[in-house]
Amino acid sequence: MPDGTTGDLPRFHQQLAKENLAPLWEVMRDLVPPEPRPVALPAIWKADRLREHALTAGRLITAEKAERRVVVLENPGLRGQSQITTSLYAGVQLILPGEVAPTHRHTASALRLIMEGAGAYTIVDGERVEMHAGDFIITPTWSLHDHGSDGSAPVIWLDGLDVPIVKLLNAGFSEHVGNGKQAVTKAEGDSLARYGSGLVPVNHVSRNAVSPVFWYPYSRTRQALEQMRRAGEWDAAEGLRLAYTDPTTGRSPIRTMGAFMQLLPQGFEGTEIRSTDGAVYSVVEGRGTVQVGDERWEVGPRDVFVVPGWAWHAFSASEDLTLFSFSDRPLQEALGFWREQRR
Amino acid sequence: MPDGTTGDLPRFHQQLAKENLAPLWEVMRDLVPPEPRPVALPAIWKADRLREHALTAGRLITAEKAERRVVVLENPGLRGQSQITTSLYAGVQLILPGEVAPTHRHTASALRLIMEGAGAYTIVDGERVEMHAGDFIITPTWSLHDHGSDGSAPVIWLDGLDVPIVKLLNAGFSEHVGNGKQAVTKAEGDSLARYGSGLVPVNHVSRNAVSPVFWYPYSRTRQALEQMRRAGEWDAAEGLRLAYTDPTTGRSPIRTMGAFMQLLPQGFEGTEIRSTDGAVYSVVEGRGTVQVGDERWEVGPRDVFVVPGWAWHAFSASEDLTLFSFSDRPLQEALGFWREQRR
Amino acid sequence: MPDGTTGDLPRFHQQLAKENLAPLWEVMRDLVPPEPRPVALPAIWKADRLREHALTAGRLITAEKAERRVVVLENPGLRGQSQITTSLYAGVQLILPGEVAPTHRHTASALRLIMEGAGAYTIVDGERVEMHAGDFIITPTWSLHDHGSDGSAPVIWLDGLDVPIVKLLNAGFSEHVGNGKQAVTKAEGDSLARYGSGLVPVNHVSRNAVSPVFWYPYSRTRQALEQMRRAGEWDAAEGLRLAYTDPTTGRSPIRTMGAFMQLLPQGFEGTEIRSTDGAVYSVVEGRGTVQVGDERWEVGPRDVFVVPGWAWHAFSASEDLTLFSFSDRPLQEALGFWREQRR
Amino acid sequence: MPDGTTGDLPRFHQQLAKENLAPLWEVMRDLVPPEPRPVALPAIWKADRLREHALTAGRLITAEKAERRVVVLENPGLRGQSQITTSLYAGVQLILPGEVAPTHRHTASALRLIMEGAGAYTIVDGERVEMHAGDFIITPTWSLHDHGSDGSAPVIWLDGLDVPIVKLLNAGFSEHVGNGKQAVTKAEGDSLARYGSGLVPVNHVSRNAVSPVFWYPYSRTRQALEQMRRAGEWDAAEGLRLAYTDPTTGRSPIRTMGAFMQLLPQGFEGTEIRSTDGAVYSVVEGRGTVQVGDERWEVGPRDVFVVPGWAWHAFSASEDLTLFSFSDRPLQEALGFWREQRR
Repeated sequence: MPDGTTGDLPRFHQQLAKENLAPLWEVMRDLVPPEPRPVALPAIWKADRLREHALTAGRLITAEKAERRVVVLENPGLRGQSQITTSLYAGVQLILPGEVAPTHRHTASALRLIMEGAGAYTIVDGERVEMHAGDFIITPTWSLHDHGSDGSAPVIWLDGLDVPIVKLLNAGFSEHVGNGKQAVTKAEGDSLARYGSGLVPVNHVSRNAVSPVFWYPYSRTRQALEQMRRAGEWDAAEGLRLAYTDPTTGRSPIRTMGAFMQLLPQGFEGTEIRSTDGAVYSVVEGRGTVQVGDERWEVGPRDVFVVPGWAWHAFSASEDLTLFSFSDRPLQEALGFWREQRR
Repeated sequence: MPDGTTGDLPRFHQQLAKENLAPLWEVMRDLVPPEPRPVALPAIWKADRLREHALTAGRLITAEKAERRVVVLENPGLRGQSQITTSLYAGVQLILPGEVAPTHRHTASALRLIMEGAGAYTIVDGERVEMHAGDFIITPTWSLHDHGSDGSAPVIWLDGLDVPIVKLLNAGFSEHVGNGKQAVTKAEGDSLARYGSGLVPVNHVSRNAVSPVFWYPYSRTRQALEQMRRAGEWDAAEGLRLAYTDPTTGRSPIRTMGAFMQLLPQGFEGTEIRSTDGAVYSVVEGRGTVQVGDERWEVGPRDVFVVPGWAWHAFSASEDLTLFSFSDRPLQEALGFWREQRR
Repeated sequence: MPDGTTGDLPRFHQQLAKENLAPLWEVMRDLVPPEPRPVALPAIWKADRLREHALTAGRLITAEKAERRVVVLENPGLRGQSQITTSLYAGVQLILPGEVAPTHRHTASALRLIMEGAGAYTIVDGERVEMHAGDFIITPTWSLHDHGSDGSAPVIWLDGLDVPIVKLLNAGFSEHVGNGKQAVTKAEGDSLARYGSGLVPVNHVSRNAVSPVFWYPYSRTRQALEQMRRAGEWDAAEGLRLAYTDPTTGRSPIRTMGAFMQLLPQGFEGTEIRSTDGAVYSVVEGRGTVQVGDERWEVGPRDVFVVPGWAWHAFSASEDLTLFSFSDRPLQEALGFWREQRR
Repeated sequence: MPDGTTGDLPRFHQQLAKENLAPLWEVMRDLVPPEPRPVALPAIWKADRLREHALTAGRLITAEKAERRVVVLENPGLRGQSQITTSLYAGVQLILPGEVAPTHRHTASALRLIMEGAGAYTIVDGERVEMHAGDFIITPTWSLHDHGSDGSAPVIWLDGLDVPIVKLLNAGFSEHVGNGKQAVTKAEGDSLARYGSGLVPVNHVSRNAVSPVFWYPYSRTRQALEQMRRAGEWDAAEGLRLAYTDPTTGRSPIRTMGAFMQLLPQGFEGTEIRSTDGAVYSVVEGRGTVQVGDERWEVGPRDVFVVPGWAWHAFSASEDLTLFSFSDRPLQEALGFWREQRR
């Protein structure tokens, strides 16, 4: 067999197929590619469109009926799969005054960036927190949570979940608890005070994979960025980029997903960078330009865009630009997969 | 809107679709199921059929041409995706006397259970190890490896890889190095002696996510099981089950996958158990019966079968039964997902 | 030998002594006691006396001459050894306006509770921090540090060091760097912003045993205690007790010593408790009573007292009582030694 | 005060002394030395003298009477303190045929190198192990243990304990359990099989600071050294040096003490090295020369010698030389104190 195979292969392949078997040599290049494939595509969703659609959804379906009234951001390269990257889910959620998104919990972890409004709250494992624009809030795996609004205006936020990861592992559970709003058993701000002030209760015992801090107010994050900018240490590609952490471990508050806040000062012209984790970004404040592969976008407040894994990208800032982002980087790092490249 | 929705929804959904958006309320139950879904199915591949197909492949295609001459075990519930569970790949590989499966490395980690033959070897990062039936051998993420045989008989083994996990994260790289067989730079057995004898070199520094021990000879594993059986402590469902570990961390030698060896004594009648990790089993020695859901199989040496995640199953042993298995349990545990239930 | 020994023992003991040997049976009960021995004694130093002596020292010796102008608190059970417990050192340090305590570093880690005054600063590894009453400041092992005052009044603080631990291990190094005050290379508050706001720089790498946060302002600690008291969860013996932590690890910011802040509400009558770690306390705010063994003290602001390891003690509060304390608990916990008992 | 002090200092110092206070400036140089001080001295105890004294003790006092019949090795620089280094205790213990050293447990951890004899056993937490020359056996903190001999000849071993560390922390407890020999509840070799064969039971949960493996047979250690020597990688100062580890953590099986086995091939001429941990050595096999500071010793089987911390030393081997040693290195490393220097 000069080319290393014989003509009987096709019949052999048919026989294998009958017995739930397949020839690796037909698919190996696809299974073990030389480098990450561009399956997810760069994409941007403008703030005004997202807002309009969220409000339309608010007219057409109730939070109770929807359970969660969310418009899912689907990557154009992965339509119909409720995915914004190969491993992550993202959506824009709306709560209207007086509404309640009922109490449930699930294996998937959720993270939220509050985009607009006031008067809405999230309750996580018995602690209520009011949501303000720029706040970062998490509901780690299997945490009871519900949302609602006592306010007078719509509240909109960006959701990120690790649903595709849970789905791959087929380890997902969920349940509804009680009917609607869970009982508040802790004082507002208790967890942040208890674990987020540089101290922990002497007898604290870590609960596997769950951060006791679930609310990261933007006021505090902003203050940290302003303080740090005085050092004038700007990464050539990323400016000043911070990762949200669980202060009881120093690790990401969610094991599968990392969330980041970064500041690019006015006039910043970032160099090109790429990493294996595909990231979802949202502008918190300011304006700038994002280059991803051949795409080039002017971005402003509340725009949401996705930078696929291993795609070269660069940021520039026409005003001080504050960017929120999330990705699966902590999981990739834990597995020894994560890579970064600059040019 | 008595039912919480209005008639305009269909048109709204169409509009969303145009902008890479989708309504969560249409898919939420699918994204966040009440418990793991039976997507993978129970299945068994009998030893004689696997052997025959491997040998047929040996006649029809060379190891060089195939790069790896492997018959992939596809789960009947996941055909066409080279998956034996939702997160794992499995295959049966053949090396014939004088052949070489050329040197490469990839992000995906591989584990192997040697099923038959002698005289074949694997070289991992410059260390050669001869493969014997029952040996457990790993090539962790990005380890250089090639296989070959100086023997006189075919050598067959079971491969397990985390390809679907790497694919989900889209973080996979691979490369071919040199042409064929890599240079041997270490004495055979060096790593096992250096790290697997209850000591480590004083200046050892752990390399992220990679075990320095890659060869777990069956002679040693068997001896451990024989020694332990004297304690007579049998788990009602699992008998005596051990997990392979990296002695420099006490964790699984591969972060994404765990591998296990278990002994069920003759006459053992196991109780029913299920866990969220779907597992691939192979009989190393002995005979017994496996019940998975409504399926019931007589199993013997070198049979391979899969128990899907969250599927009730039970084992019984008509002879002392030694079972090898692997699953994604370590990853699920690290993420706080793993659950087990007994009845 | 009815009593199990013979008369030749004394001569044998003499012979052993000549060869740097000794009979264990003569000392075993002392080496392996049934429980911790009361070697350190309960003791209190009243605030006014400490202040007076510190100021007298200020008249008699300069900070430069003394290198550190400190009055050492010696446990009455351990005189002449510069120890306040068997493993810890404590002292009261004074800086006068315009003075400088020159730059040095040493293996021993230091922690400080600011007791009085304003306008003084500490510089740690190039970052300056102003010291205010109630602030907790650390200079972890081998950190460059110097102190000084630009203020108009004396500044006094409590020092705690692990000198006896370093001495036991005989692993202590020290050096003087430059002459006097080190250069300030970071903006004030940079570390706290960078690591203490719920985030860390994306590329942060932990430095063994050293916390990047070294300043824990009292304003923030006080706020946390006030927030937490709303939960009304009071430990029967300790009220509300928090441990200072390194937010990048969740562990004590110093490996050998732990520091704690606790709040006992007015009217609190604590139950008796003891633990193996001897602790040094100082009252930050409020008044109350401390019972240690047979000793009973009325305590008020800036009083310093020591509760020896394994000594029963109880606290009561006639006013809201805020207590700072430090001990070797983290080291004992890491070694599996730490025990606590209540009655 | 030109020299920075005034004449009133002596009176002030007297006043301080009355109030359990002391001036730091009088002792600071002693408390914070520029580098480790030579408090412990180099010393050697020849095998024949140790053996003779152990046997003499055997004639003069029973194991029961002595509880542990041990001749303590006292560092000539630390006489009367039962210390061989500033932090460690060492002794030579004898068990005669038919004797029992009764069951007890204590906070201090013990490690043992068997020097001579056969037929003696140690029972640790219900598991019996027979002791052979060269075996390394540990009784971690609070483990029940007793020793005895069913043999026909004396058995002698080297004990190492962390007594001075426990004493410094004043956290030591001890108790006698039952009268004499504890019940054997596990098969001999069970722990080593269960945890030391490259696997662990699936449901293993680590017990703080205690290794489940307590017996490291010399046959296995020797084999590892012989296997590794084939690599021909010799450290210029230490030859081939391995640290005993807990395979469930990869760390030292005792948190306070590390134990090491090293091989120096015949003709090895080691370069000079020093580290902050003072170490106790015993020759297991072979002959060579040890240079410590100005001391130079010819060493042979069962000689015991101590190399103080930070003392320059070098080894040479006239025959293949196998050295056992132990020190407090793991504790120093955990605290960030450990340093090594070569020349």
